[in-house]
Formats: sequence, C-alpha cells, structure tokens
Amino acid sequence: MVIDDSPILVPPSDIGTHLGRLLDNTEGTDVSFIIDDEAFPAHRAVLAARSPVFKAELFGSMAESTMPSIMMHDITPATFRTMLRFIYTDELPAEDEHQDTSTEMIQNLLVAADRYALDRLKFICSQKLWDKVSVDTVGTILACAETYNCQELKNKCIDFFVLEENFKQAVFTDGYVALVLKFPSIAAELKRRVRE
Amino acid sequence: MVIDDSPILVPPSDIGTHLGRLLDNTEGTDVSFIIDDEAFPAHRAVLAARSPVFKAELFGSMAESTMPSIMMHDITPATFRTMLRFIYTDELPAEDEHQDTSTEMIQNLLVAADRYALDRLKFICSQKLWDKVSVDTVGTILACAETYNCQELKNKCIDFFVLEENFKQAVFTDGYVALVLKFPSIAAELKRRVRE
Repeated sequence: MVIDDSPILVPPSDIGTHLGRLLDNTEGTDVSFIIDDEAFPAHRAVLAARSPVFKAELFGSMAESTMPSIMMHDITPATFRTMLRFIYTDELPAEDEHQDTSTEMIQNLLVAADRYALDRLKFICSQKLWDKVSVDTVGTILACAETYNCQELKNKCIDFFVLEENFKQAVFTDGYVALVLKFPSIAAELKRRVRE
Repeated sequence: MVIDDSPILVPPSDIGTHLGRLLDNTEGTDVSFIIDDEAFPAHRAVLAARSPVFKAELFGSMAESTMPSIMMHDITPATFRTMLRFIYTDELPAEDEHQDTSTEMIQNLLVAADRYALDRLKFICSQKLWDKVSVDTVGTILACAETYNCQELKNKCIDFFVLEENFKQAVFTDGYVALVLKFPSIAAELKRRVRE
C-alpha cells in the first residue's frame, strides 16, 4: 500500500463572502445611510475597519447614538451601493449586462473611494479607467487621475497622450481643453514631453 | 517610444488586515467575553458574519443589550484569543517560539471551531493535526477527528494506522485504548482493514 502523505487542503479565505452575506441579510445593522429616499443599512464595525474616514465619523460623535441615520448628498445610490459592497467583500460585482461599467460610473466610484480613503478600491478604479483610455477619453481620465491622486494612472495617461498618433487627436477633445484649464502644470508637462 | 500597455496592478485583498486592526484597537466593540477574569471585547457584526452560532447567540435575545458580557466556561483564554484572531483575520498567528502549537492546543482550537461552526478553521486544525500524526499520536488524533467530524483527517489517520509497521506500535498506546472504548465502529473498521 502506498502511504498518502499529501497535506489536507484548506479552502481559500471566505471572509469577504461571509461579510457579503452579513450585508445582504442586514441583521445587526447599527447605522443607516439615506440617499434620495433610499436607505442603506450597514454595520459600523465593518465600515470603521475598512475606512479611516468612516471610523472617524462613526466612532466619533455618533458613537452613542443607537441607530444614526446619515443623509448623503454627494453620491448616487448606485455608487454608494457598489462602494458598500466593496467595503464588505473587497470585490466589485461581476461585470454583466446589468452592471454599469461606464467610464462615468467608475469615475464616480473613484471619487467615493478617495473620499473614504479606500486605497485598494482606488487601484481597482485606476485599473478599470486605464482599460478605457483612448484618444477620446485620455484628457478626461488624466484630469480624474490628477484630481484623485492616482499616480500610476496619471503617468500612464501622460505616456499614452504624448505618442504622436494619439496627441494629434486627443488635443481636439473637450476633455483635453478642460484638463489644461484646470491643471496648467499637466499642460506644461505634456508640452515638454511632446517636444522631447 | 514603446507603448506601456501593462495593466495597473491591484494589491491583494486586505480585508483581514483591516479587521485584525479593528480587533487590536477595540474601538466600537459591543460585546465582551469573560474567561477566567480576562475580558475579550469584540464586535457582534464580525462574529455574526463569521459564525452562524455567534449569529444566533448575539442577534437573538441579546440583540437589545447595549454591551452584553458573556461568561465563557468551556474554553481557555489562549484558545479563545486564537479563535477570535482567526475570526477577524482568517489566519492563525504565525508559528514562533511564543506560540503554543502543541497537539493539545490545536485540539482545543478544533473543539472551539466545531462549537462555533468555523469550517475553514476546522480544515486548518485538521491540516496541523495531520502533520503531527505518528504511531504515538494516531489513536488520539483519530478519536478527535471522529468526535469533531473531520472526515478527511479521519480517513488519513485510518490509512496510516493500518500500515503494518504503524499498526504494530500504535495499538500499544493509551490513545488507541481510549479510541476503541469510545468508538467501537472505528475499532471494527481498523480490524477489517488490517485483515484485508
């Protein structure tokens, strides 16, 4: 008989799956976010663990309140729902026909990720925006990268922009005009790089 | 110029690290476990997400209590501390000289994992116990696998036990005697397998 000395295999980490279920069944929620008459119940402990901004907000003055309701004005329900799902599961929903994966939606998510200091979500948004970079979008996405401190995305956009075949088209987009108006320093860098 | 079309790399999931920090700084805890005069503050949402048993206990009758203190009698502080760390981080502490990794400690952890239905922790304990199987320990570990429904560990222990060079020594251990007294069905299976 051959001895079976293979190890016992341990399944992969399921902590995100577990927290995702907690979010779904809403049991034990102790805070609620209200956006456009839609309520998002959540657990302060999870939010605080994942976001230093939520931690400061929820364990500060509201700590004693039994079930605070927080009105949110600067975020859409769809963006908040996706961010909340990410906070609990460390993943974005799978991309399918029902999922809005437009550049605008990802930019909105990046704004929220920056607002709540969700660094890993910022990387994911940067990755998805980089997939969408074209001569039509590079101006807008570069402005977004600069605004929300996505250094790697910014560098890649600049490298893409200054290629002659891209540059000759990208400068005629509205996104480029908005970029140079808002960020003269980037305009200067593009100029310097194109002349090299 | 070469186009850099490499993707932007996203760091690995950090949800366990975040929850581990939440456990360390004890902010926002809303339940406390008392074992031998030692207090372990924790967050009900995290415990309930990870363990259906904690979920039933903490979101049942105690749900309305502001900060319940729960006396625990059937677990040691060291075992509870390790289990709590696993619940938050999905990992066991790294093995070093300060860490008790005795067979007894792992068995205690398996008892707790079974009690709170932490299936992945049961796999980890099974894996660690399998590493400790020898002619001296196989009887005790087999009884443990049977008691706590670790099927893979049980099958591997039986395969190990019935090898002639192991069998001739293992039957003289106290662990074997305790095993056959407690589980006659396993004794019957070992007998059948040895005669094959």
